Amino acid sequence: MGIVMGQNNYGKADIRLVKVFRDTERHEIKDVHIAVAQRGDFDAVHVEGDNSGAMATDTMRNTVYALAKDELTSSIEDFGVKLARHFVEAAPRAASIRINMTEHPWGRIEVNGEPHDHSFVRGAGVRTAEVVGDGNEFAVEAGIDDLIVLRTTESGWAGFHRDRFTSLPETNDRIMATVVTAKWEYGGRVDLDFDALWESVRNQILETFTDHFSPSVQNTLYLMGKAVLEGYSEVERIHFSLPNRHHILYDLDRFGMENENEIFHADAEPYGLIEGWVERS
Amino acid sequence: MGIVMGQNNYGKADIRLVKVFRDTERHEIKDVHIAVAQRGDFDAVHVEGDNSGAMATDTMRNTVYALAKDELTSSIEDFGVKLARHFVEAAPRAASIRINMTEHPWGRIEVNGEPHDHSFVRGAGVRTAEVVGDGNEFAVEAGIDDLIVLRTTESGWAGFHRDRFTSLPETNDRIMATVVTAKWEYGGRVDLDFDALWESVRNQILETFTDHFSPSVQNTLYLMGKAVLEGYSEVERIHFSLPNRHHILYDLDRFGMENENEIFHADAEPYGLIEGWVERS
Amino acid sequence: MGIVMGQNNYGKADIRLVKVFRDTERHEIKDVHIAVAQRGDFDAVHVEGDNSGAMATDTMRNTVYALAKDELTSSIEDFGVKLARHFVEAAPRAASIRINMTEHPWGRIEVNGEPHDHSFVRGAGVRTAEVVGDGNEFAVEAGIDDLIVLRTTESGWAGFHRDRFTSLPETNDRIMATVVTAKWEYGGRVDLDFDALWESVRNQILETFTDHFSPSVQNTLYLMGKAVLEGYSEVERIHFSLPNRHHILYDLDRFGMENENEIFHADAEPYGLIEGWVERS
Amino acid sequence: MGIVMGQNNYGKADIRLVKVFRDTERHEIKDVHIAVAQRGDFDAVHVEGDNSGAMATDTMRNTVYALAKDELTSSIEDFGVKLARHFVEAAPRAASIRINMTEHPWGRIEVNGEPHDHSFVRGAGVRTAEVVGDGNEFAVEAGIDDLIVLRTTESGWAGFHRDRFTSLPETNDRIMATVVTAKWEYGGRVDLDFDALWESVRNQILETFTDHFSPSVQNTLYLMGKAVLEGYSEVERIHFSLPNRHHILYDLDRFGMENENEIFHADAEPYGLIEGWVERS
Repeated sequence: MGIVMGQNNYGKADIRLVKVFRDTERHEIKDVHIAVAQRGDFDAVHVEGDNSGAMATDTMRNTVYALAKDELTSSIEDFGVKLARHFVEAAPRAASIRINMTEHPWGRIEVNGEPHDHSFVRGAGVRTAEVVGDGNEFAVEAGIDDLIVLRTTESGWAGFHRDRFTSLPETNDRIMATVVTAKWEYGGRVDLDFDALWESVRNQILETFTDHFSPSVQNTLYLMGKAVLEGYSEVERIHFSLPNRHHILYDLDRFGMENENEIFHADAEPYGLIEGWVERS
Repeated sequence: MGIVMGQNNYGKADIRLVKVFRDTERHEIKDVHIAVAQRGDFDAVHVEGDNSGAMATDTMRNTVYALAKDELTSSIEDFGVKLARHFVEAAPRAASIRINMTEHPWGRIEVNGEPHDHSFVRGAGVRTAEVVGDGNEFAVEAGIDDLIVLRTTESGWAGFHRDRFTSLPETNDRIMATVVTAKWEYGGRVDLDFDALWESVRNQILETFTDHFSPSVQNTLYLMGKAVLEGYSEVERIHFSLPNRHHILYDLDRFGMENENEIFHADAEPYGLIEGWVERS
Repeated sequence: MGIVMGQNNYGKADIRLVKVFRDTERHEIKDVHIAVAQRGDFDAVHVEGDNSGAMATDTMRNTVYALAKDELTSSIEDFGVKLARHFVEAAPRAASIRINMTEHPWGRIEVNGEPHDHSFVRGAGVRTAEVVGDGNEFAVEAGIDDLIVLRTTESGWAGFHRDRFTSLPETNDRIMATVVTAKWEYGGRVDLDFDALWESVRNQILETFTDHFSPSVQNTLYLMGKAVLEGYSEVERIHFSLPNRHHILYDLDRFGMENENEIFHADAEPYGLIEGWVERS
Repeated sequence: MGIVMGQNNYGKADIRLVKVFRDTERHEIKDVHIAVAQRGDFDAVHVEGDNSGAMATDTMRNTVYALAKDELTSSIEDFGVKLARHFVEAAPRAASIRINMTEHPWGRIEVNGEPHDHSFVRGAGVRTAEVVGDGNEFAVEAGIDDLIVLRTTESGWAGFHRDRFTSLPETNDRIMATVVTAKWEYGGRVDLDFDALWESVRNQILETFTDHFSPSVQNTLYLMGKAVLEGYSEVERIHFSLPNRHHILYDLDRFGMENENEIFHADAEPYGLIEGWVERS
């Protein structure tokens, strides 16, 4: 019996790329953090200390900036496919490439109601994407992170299991708040209008978040996923990770006051964490 | 010669208050993190271990939630004044009170173009306020934090001092990016329309950020401050803390490519830090 | 074709438990952050909004604190097994339980060279553990996080692949620094002396980090894993995640000075990231 | 009435310097984050956009790395004085310089009980220093940050003021835990053995933390300060910022269990914050 390398990968993380499109007076920007990871035949590197055929992670960084010049022209998903395609060819030992991207949203500063040509203010939430490919086939995943949402009513948590250690009362009117992390898979398709789809899926998630009485974060998770799958056939399946940001009704009774669902403590931890895939059967 | 207590303060930090206004179907929310600090005659507490007359920080917390019910009805500055007034009366040994507040912005989720009645999404940047008072007089300060802005052109850095350790080339076209932290003083006035003023000052800062060729972050700092002071007589003075988020032109020459001010590395550190007050003379 | 729930889990994250053992004058403490996640038959919860049989995450929290009283008596791995066993029985719909734990290390404050009975100072790095079980079988994993190590010499990176985008020079003497995140599997065994094993594995990792010329982070990863597997038959396999914290030789030539491997910039990002399992064949 | 610049400063923050001392086989390292800030006559820079005489923050960075080669030979306080002296001479418009430093502690990895020559592991807590000077006079301040300490007993909080909003019970046996941030002033002296003093002051703080029944964080703050001032005449005054990391006895009564000061929830926020100077009269 011997000792061997199992699954492994290496690459460059947190490459912070900003591209300015200055073709016209009206500039555009892309602000993307990128991670590159390679998988392949790296046994000699690990076991023998033989670096031949191994691409330096510094080269991966240089490459991302260099390719951005001509190849980052539309969506991050599209750029991810191009990067993956490049690296799987350029790196002698790499069999497959994973590209992770986080794009920060920038809006134009408004001056007298007019969006400015070259001045921007950063918005909330981020857009994510992951591309994995071996050169022939690519799996593309899009996503959202840091999207913080809250409902002040039409949410409850009741009818749950009770045992010796249960102290939580049932409620039919609570605050529901969460930080949406979602990712969804487009399967092997690389020819989609990823920007338009991302906007649509994001809007659908927000809209469904509002449109029902929620008996649980779980049910809202399912309904948001269902709405996306029903609305967008390009999406194969979707995953949500939803921390339950508990807003605890503050006990004012002890001070002779009534708290009519008005005054809450936004607890930071511990927090419930609800995660799951919604899929097509 | 003896050993004595010098300046000191104590209180509760990071009280996380959320208030829901549910008078009508169209709910409103306030999401504020609050810190309370008391100054006064606390020598016996420190030196003798005599806690008589010292308010527990837990009581400060309870009080913030309790007073929020009836007193948090308009701006955070107004609530801060009410809190300071309460504590300076309620706490036997406190001579002055400092209240620090950070308000998170929430916008309504739009459904079919209509803002929803009770569903919200959190925006970027925060609003801050500080109230300091002894019961008779109050100093009110408002502010902004985490407001990230960027200009893709009309910014330079040239004509600066050069010595043996200077390697930076001059530039007349760079990206200028910063995270605006600003605070401004209203002096002793507690009767202002703090919400309207805050919106106006914020908009003025953003607008001035866009409206000139910037030879330095320093000059832009001054111009933003000047515009606020000229536009709003209620503001006595204003302070900015502006980290220079360097966007470094990536060297593509070595790969036989030209980088025409398009491809940048957004460096995280070290960063320039430009700070100053703009005042009336 | 319909829409269904795929793999999902829910539970409580970041339960912050501190237990004091005060049987004798010489107190002991355990400081553990715990996350509980349940998997099972939760389709009705998601799809129907039917919460019957679902344990509230608040109950999970209560249970962790309550069970800690009698069951947290030795290692966190052992407590994890007990928690998993409890939850799989207590939660009607749970088929399997995952417990994640992070333990913070505390040492005794020394007074006149003597470790104090009840005063502690927190050390660096954390210990982690994960237990997954269905009630009959348990998989136990132990780990390390935030262990920051650095070598000033005997490390290089040379002989690697060069292409158009390669600008990095080869080096045979660099600083190698990383933040060790490691995890290793004990398989189904729940009867081990987890505390002693953890100490031994940690020491072995540190020792191997020092004992060879390192031609790459990859090779050091392999050698550390190999040493653990050779030394401790209880360990089935081990995974490392090693960010390459680049220390860049600062260019002093341009100032007429020589930098003989003395003056470095500790770059924060981007960073190389080297990850892999070392296994038995 | 006009608009003018008030107090202002600018400089480079978060310069991440690592120096390796390799005179012998037994290497030493210094790992310091440094911020440089200049004050002086910068009106023209702000108001006129005239950068003449202004040192680029990039030059400040270069200078720190360059001077580190020959001047960083002993304590960070000593290096801070040298940096301040250099900048006040080199920067035409600077009247005074502030240098802030944070040093990370590294210990040697032990192999078979022997400390290794060139392999290090990072410890907990950091050492800080601030030097402010105009070229003739320098004020030197040393400090500690991120030093986390905890006592399991011999601490209480009783006899405090009670009012309508007080719900906290008195206690004579609680956990007291805090993250010590301390800073102390050496006045104008630049010729002290700053390394030895720092060790001594740190040890004194830890020792005093253990040696008394604590009726309040305030009293412990005072006693720690008093012990330092009594023990070290070089220290003019000392400031502590002590967040009260509340450990809340978890209510197990409701589950029919007794919690004999054993099971605690380590609450993250809100937290009490106790701050003050201890001085010589």
